Amino acid sequence: MQISTALISVSDKTGVKAFARELHQLGVKLLSTGGTAKLLREAGLPVTDVSDHTGFPEMLDGRVKTLHPTVHGGILARRDLAEHMDTIAGAGIERIDLVVVNLYPFAQTIAKPDCSLEDAIENIDIGGPTMVRAAAKNHGNEAGGVGVLTDAEDYAPVLAEIKANGALSAKTRFALAVKAFTHTARYDSAISNYLTALADDGSRMAYPDRLQLAFNKVQDLRYGENPHQSAAFYREPNAAEGGVAGYTQLQGKELSYNNIADADAAWECVKAFDSGHGTSACVIVKHANPCGVALGLSPLEAYKKALSTDPTSAFGGIIAFNSVVDAAAAEAVSAQFLEVLIAPAYTDEALALLAAKKNVRVLTCPMGANEGALDYKRVSGGLLVQSADIARITENDLKLVTARAPSPEEMGDLLFAWRVAKYVKSNAIVYCKGGMTVGVGAGQMSRVDSARIAKIKAENAGLSITGSVVASDAFFPFRDGLDVLAEAGATAVIQPGGSMRDEEVIAAANEHGIAMVLTGFRHFRH
Amino acid sequence: MQISTALISVSDKTGVKAFARELHQLGVKLLSTGGTAKLLREAGLPVTDVSDHTGFPEMLDGRVKTLHPTVHGGILARRDLAEHMDTIAGAGIERIDLVVVNLYPFAQTIAKPDCSLEDAIENIDIGGPTMVRAAAKNHGNEAGGVGVLTDAEDYAPVLAEIKANGALSAKTRFALAVKAFTHTARYDSAISNYLTALADDGSRMAYPDRLQLAFNKVQDLRYGENPHQSAAFYREPNAAEGGVAGYTQLQGKELSYNNIADADAAWECVKAFDSGHGTSACVIVKHANPCGVALGLSPLEAYKKALSTDPTSAFGGIIAFNSVVDAAAAEAVSAQFLEVLIAPAYTDEALALLAAKKNVRVLTCPMGANEGALDYKRVSGGLLVQSADIARITENDLKLVTARAPSPEEMGDLLFAWRVAKYVKSNAIVYCKGGMTVGVGAGQMSRVDSARIAKIKAENAGLSITGSVVASDAFFPFRDGLDVLAEAGATAVIQPGGSMRDEEVIAAANEHGIAMVLTGFRHFRH
Repeated sequence: MQISTALISVSDKTGVKAFARELHQLGVKLLSTGGTAKLLREAGLPVTDVSDHTGFPEMLDGRVKTLHPTVHGGILARRDLAEHMDTIAGAGIERIDLVVVNLYPFAQTIAKPDCSLEDAIENIDIGGPTMVRAAAKNHGNEAGGVGVLTDAEDYAPVLAEIKANGALSAKTRFALAVKAFTHTARYDSAISNYLTALADDGSRMAYPDRLQLAFNKVQDLRYGENPHQSAAFYREPNAAEGGVAGYTQLQGKELSYNNIADADAAWECVKAFDSGHGTSACVIVKHANPCGVALGLSPLEAYKKALSTDPTSAFGGIIAFNSVVDAAAAEAVSAQFLEVLIAPAYTDEALALLAAKKNVRVLTCPMGANEGALDYKRVSGGLLVQSADIARITENDLKLVTARAPSPEEMGDLLFAWRVAKYVKSNAIVYCKGGMTVGVGAGQMSRVDSARIAKIKAENAGLSITGSVVASDAFFPFRDGLDVLAEAGATAVIQPGGSMRDEEVIAAANEHGIAMVLTGFRHFRH
Repeated sequence: MQISTALISVSDKTGVKAFARELHQLGVKLLSTGGTAKLLREAGLPVTDVSDHTGFPEMLDGRVKTLHPTVHGGILARRDLAEHMDTIAGAGIERIDLVVVNLYPFAQTIAKPDCSLEDAIENIDIGGPTMVRAAAKNHGNEAGGVGVLTDAEDYAPVLAEIKANGALSAKTRFALAVKAFTHTARYDSAISNYLTALADDGSRMAYPDRLQLAFNKVQDLRYGENPHQSAAFYREPNAAEGGVAGYTQLQGKELSYNNIADADAAWECVKAFDSGHGTSACVIVKHANPCGVALGLSPLEAYKKALSTDPTSAFGGIIAFNSVVDAAAAEAVSAQFLEVLIAPAYTDEALALLAAKKNVRVLTCPMGANEGALDYKRVSGGLLVQSADIARITENDLKLVTARAPSPEEMGDLLFAWRVAKYVKSNAIVYCKGGMTVGVGAGQMSRVDSARIAKIKAENAGLSITGSVVASDAFFPFRDGLDVLAEAGATAVIQPGGSMRDEEVIAAANEHGIAMVLTGFRHFRH
């Protein structure tokens, strides 16, 4: 069935002139309204106003123009039913075979700092979504139907198909319809999120009463956390750069569920360290925890130090760098069994070396903080939503509570250890020395156990804890944890403070000659 | 402004007759279509068909009936603008002040086993959402506007307000409008989820290309995982019973973010055990990990055993029971510092005892599996989605691989240990004996460390590992982990198997006289 008439009314005017011109040249009649009609007319195209088409004047400042049986009969009549075709013919209604409509993103309306509730409401489109939905519903079948375009990206392939075949296939119309319903779903979801976040006084609450989330599938995964679970990986539309979801895979096997989860942990941790000034950071993650983190004058040095923290755990790990991976680092990491390598970039030599390890998944990801994003934690039947943990600390923010102050070397390691502790599962105790982790106590139900396991792990790795510093992700509820650290040989501690027994803990530190500084906030991560 | 005309067209007909009758008695003109009109007429109410109202016959099998300027001019004209009021008066259009429309849940359409794509598409409502959205947009202001009802629950309060004040306040109309946009957002979201999950061959994929998720806020939380993070808790609409999100709080302080997360872990774990037959299960969780799990002939016995695993960690923990909590158990748990208590029910005596501990959060939750739900894991810029880990095992599914078979006692404890291991963060090593955990090695980056820490924890708790059994949530990559277990005194092991070095591990088990059974699948949980 040849395309007779197209109705064009777009907010995003990208490419619409050229598209309309081609439709015109193909003999398609152009219906339009408002700004789009003006634009097309200025481009010299013959355009019929919808009000002339319906014979009904646009009214109420444009609130009612396309909400008319002449438009919707033309869209909704089934092309495969002679009765429908006869009905509209009898009513003098012309078929509308293409609906080219996209909606001004509501999220952009409300992002304007001076957007009032009244502005927001006035910006809600009623006619547009109705045409999009009607056209999508009536995408039809082999006998014909309506093509609905909600994305300028589709103009070129749609035109090519029309030129080649004189019409759009049922398959193309269906694909366009599917896209259209996602377009209207997300439009109303943005409206719902905005309106249900308004407090009684008109201010916006952080968390809407009715939360609608939208994600785009990147890929189905072979399986989930375990092989008997199915899984898929989704990206957030319009996510800020820097998140692991924005990865590009340069080589290697398909990413698994656990690969992506661990790469996220490694990437977020390694980005916490500044690159440049001749320093690199390397993070090795296993089972969602960093098992080695280090700074070095080169990626190679950072890697060697990170690996030495816990070579046993590093086997089969995920390795992240915050700087360009060069040949020396690539050669070194290639010598171990690893699942994923992630970095902002690689030298050509490094990529050539890595190519020899075909299975290793090599990813690049742009650096960036993505700190405005919300964190989600699933619980059975519900969802916990929270803002990201973006608290930062500098030396000036710390409160010295012991007789002895940290030396400059200790202070550097304390700040390093505190950054690492944020990414270790709670309870987290991290021993560090010389810009590297020497013992990571992760995921224990009691803080003193985390202190013990970190020490044992350091011993097993042949590392000395003597003279190291320690970060604790939350306060010490009792002095026992601190006693373990001191007995292990640690000389300085960074922790939030705030326990009812802070005095007892500080006294213990003074007894042991430990220098202790408080951050005033904790870094739980579960 | 008095309500002149109501347009009523509902899929969910609950209460609509009584509501319409009252509107009629208040002098409101009733417009309606199709099934709703028929129902109201049968109830003896005077109803004007929309086609009589518009003077335009319903066409295309009802696809076009309300998509008409007489309807939408009547809805969309701003009551505060004389120009708008004059325009519709001049065009002979009557105001429509109430729009009572709800949409047949698309999710129910496609849930029917025989629902074809064609049926699904035909069920997509175009006119209904348009009226809902138009009315919601024009909810107006103090000068007047449209009330939109999408939920039968709102009939009574709306009627009461109309009777009391002769009209709806701007505040009520706004609240109804907000609800309406959530209604249409979720309607189109369900359509998008369905359509983007269709594979080329018409089958439904597990994971749609465009994923829309919806949640309803239960409460803003005081803070998130840490005090410097904001947070809120949401429930999934229509979640199956049994998830922690369906809790009822009987007493105590407000739940925190970490309380909810830990209560979820405890509740899911304790539900894994059958109640009844004179046995109870108790789980104590700290920092997202079970620090004690036990079965007992009474809740009290189960609790005492669970507590003995790790009394240090249990301090400030979350305690879950899978059976009714009686006075004896309530008295015992009251003697320790705990954050949350969760159980299917409590005796009156137990509640009276708990009332003395005002701060303790006491929750009830219906038992239930909620196994069809999806699991979500947030990564930066994206979301990992997977099916729940619902793999089950019985004695008959196990593969014996060692010379010695487990004794009946060992077998009971092996099955118990395997269930517990599922809820311990990976790598998980769980020593059990006599229906209780004796050492829980959680969240380590290497399996051998989990084996070590579990042994150390048992020793610290004064428990003997000799003669205990062990569950490992995934296979042993090397024999070292097994050697640690054997040296600690374990006599039987349950693990998935599947390592390249299974033979080496089995040989080690035989050397130590250990009985080992394989499950064939793992239980990673991070």
